[in-house]
Amino acid sequence: MKKINIGIIGFGTVGSAVAEVLRKNKAVIAERAGVGIGLKAVCDIRRIKTSWPLTPDPMTLINDPDIAVVVETMGGVNPAKKYVLAALKAGKHVVTSNKELIARHLPELLAAAAENNVSLLFEGAVGGGIPILDTLRDNLAANKISEVYGIVNGTTNYILSRMTAEGKDFGAVLKAAQKLGYAEADPRADIEGYDASYKAAILAAVAYGARVRWESVYREGLEKITAEDIAYAGEIGYAIKLLAVAKLSGGALDVRVHPALVAKTHPLSNVDGNFNAIYVKGFPVGELMFYGPGAGGNPTASAVINDILAALRAPRPATRGLKPFPLLPIAQTAGRYYIRLQAPDKPGVLAGISKIFADKKVSIAAVTQKETIGNLATIVILVHGVKESSLVAALRAIKRLPVVRAVGNVIRIL
Amino acid sequence: MKKINIGIIGFGTVGSAVAEVLRKNKAVIAERAGVGIGLKAVCDIRRIKTSWPLTPDPMTLINDPDIAVVVETMGGVNPAKKYVLAALKAGKHVVTSNKELIARHLPELLAAAAENNVSLLFEGAVGGGIPILDTLRDNLAANKISEVYGIVNGTTNYILSRMTAEGKDFGAVLKAAQKLGYAEADPRADIEGYDASYKAAILAAVAYGARVRWESVYREGLEKITAEDIAYAGEIGYAIKLLAVAKLSGGALDVRVHPALVAKTHPLSNVDGNFNAIYVKGFPVGELMFYGPGAGGNPTASAVINDILAALRAPRPATRGLKPFPLLPIAQTAGRYYIRLQAPDKPGVLAGISKIFADKKVSIAAVTQKETIGNLATIVILVHGVKESSLVAALRAIKRLPVVRAVGNVIRIL
Repeated sequence: MKKINIGIIGFGTVGSAVAEVLRKNKAVIAERAGVGIGLKAVCDIRRIKTSWPLTPDPMTLINDPDIAVVVETMGGVNPAKKYVLAALKAGKHVVTSNKELIARHLPELLAAAAENNVSLLFEGAVGGGIPILDTLRDNLAANKISEVYGIVNGTTNYILSRMTAEGKDFGAVLKAAQKLGYAEADPRADIEGYDASYKAAILAAVAYGARVRWESVYREGLEKITAEDIAYAGEIGYAIKLLAVAKLSGGALDVRVHPALVAKTHPLSNVDGNFNAIYVKGFPVGELMFYGPGAGGNPTASAVINDILAALRAPRPATRGLKPFPLLPIAQTAGRYYIRLQAPDKPGVLAGISKIFADKKVSIAAVTQKETIGNLATIVILVHGVKESSLVAALRAIKRLPVVRAVGNVIRIL
Repeated sequence: MKKINIGIIGFGTVGSAVAEVLRKNKAVIAERAGVGIGLKAVCDIRRIKTSWPLTPDPMTLINDPDIAVVVETMGGVNPAKKYVLAALKAGKHVVTSNKELIARHLPELLAAAAENNVSLLFEGAVGGGIPILDTLRDNLAANKISEVYGIVNGTTNYILSRMTAEGKDFGAVLKAAQKLGYAEADPRADIEGYDASYKAAILAAVAYGARVRWESVYREGLEKITAEDIAYAGEIGYAIKLLAVAKLSGGALDVRVHPALVAKTHPLSNVDGNFNAIYVKGFPVGELMFYGPGAGGNPTASAVINDILAALRAPRPATRGLKPFPLLPIAQTAGRYYIRLQAPDKPGVLAGISKIFADKKVSIAAVTQKETIGNLATIVILVHGVKESSLVAALRAIKRLPVVRAVGNVIRIL
């Protein structure tokens, strides 16, 4: 049997899981691939105990004529980008699970892969073990994709699930999650939605062949979601999830990350804990959802090794050439909204609010007045589909109403 | 751009959807595939109104040197098998969505494809638009798959969902489903589990490379499930689903179709209506689930056209060579069970039942005595993991107890 050698740059959680799985699943991989995959060497600047040949210099692997595929699992943009480009230029296929690198530099990296007639694959960068990029690129090739909604950050989904189950507020659950290792000591990349926005940009690139500037992805994190928002949403049949959205809207692309109310009848609403799921709508296939572990050494190793096999099977670029798409500004998006207000519990309050919504052509779908604490009542309003700029204008006017004490939260509805 | 011609044999719901989608999605398909797909002719023995060249004789397409891919969407085994074999022997790739043909004759068809160095692909045969076979074969190639559980029959899932939502019995819901076109006039292929057992055999073939005699798949249908079973299961946190199971158990393969209690925390429990979903467990990936439309012209056309593109991309057999696996007899399987009994509401009944379970080493996990109607009480018992033969022996003894009036139902727990 033919043998193909690979090298791994960055021997942390994912890199070492790749090595371990190549060893444990050697027979099944060889049987399916029709070739043996040999790990020739690993590279890490740390002095790691490993039975594999270890080098501190990535260029040793990159310049090794015996190595056909370079796996990059260092993470971060620098110096990962330099080594990925060097490997592509050296004629190696590159497989990476580095979401930040891919989200920020995909066009440049794809161009380098195309120039050198090698593959650049990055299934592990979105959804961990879920083969979502392969699926969008190959298994749904007959489809016009129109909507992609993903729960793509395990940390925030874990936090939301515990807030929902335990009725606790964000801060308390975040602390508990940090203690258990489900959230980082510095959790901002997750809870402020940066991680999800990398993934939204990558999903848009693969689903639509769109060149998306990652910095242009609208982003809201989880910080403003309270236990009462989750409870009120639950009462009216919704779960709150942090969504990465990539949908076509006319000829423009609507890419964003924010919390959203998801109807309990929608398959995404049942995705709990640190699992990920990506919902896809297309023609002719209709609605699909792909569910699985969104992170971790073993699931990501599954994605990385599959990419190695895919590169060897049919070398080709990971996506079609990326085309620029106009991005829909968030003010131009349209949708339904959940609004939580605080106002004194006295006559005329609802009349004032309703009048402003009517003036601004925002149509109210449902209103509930919640319990009064002190003399302040909480009012929860759902509005029908409306352009976000109209809603913002209405809310600005409502905030100026003397009877309205505070707009507690405004959350989009999927 | 290079153009590839195809022909479609059987121009019913799926065949005509394939033609329509090739027309509507022409640009996106050409862009992704790098070739144009032309539909040269369609074949149907009926005189159909269509703008495509129509022939009543499949051999006209099969012998056409301009046609590279033959799509078989006639359904049934005869004469579909004859034409699929003829097309493979004529050096055409064959794409089919014909589950019965594939479940019954896969080894012979694969051998013919291999001999003639062409592809035989059948993604549409399981899970409609869900790309599950592609995923098992390619996107999870690094994994040792250990468990596949599928909700693969939309009709029975629709019936169970309505029984659950409305508290109605099987017969009433079946009639309503027939009126709405969700169940056939002769519904036996669906409700007795034949359709699901075709799909279980195909899933086992693709996930494990197993040569499974379809006739050996253990099969139980939906007929015995009552509204009270669904209600009792719901009270203790379970939904009832008709599952296709294909799992490895030691060196043997455990392939079966039957209703099962699925914990509401399991992602399969939330798959409602006529949707399908396939849950997969493997190493290193962990747990995945793939959800989508399990039938219908458009979703199946998505699968068929993707197979056409896959055949053109990298011609190769749809599965590895199939190997014989020992099949685990149902009596040798082990699991947890739900048991519903009827017995007079008087002292000593539970003691008698418990003693027999203890004698037969069946360990009771929970017992609930339900309301008494007349002087008959319903007792619901859950038992811990046990070999099915031991449970059957215990139930045989329990049925002989003078105090037990009837064993209402026994349902496996996932």
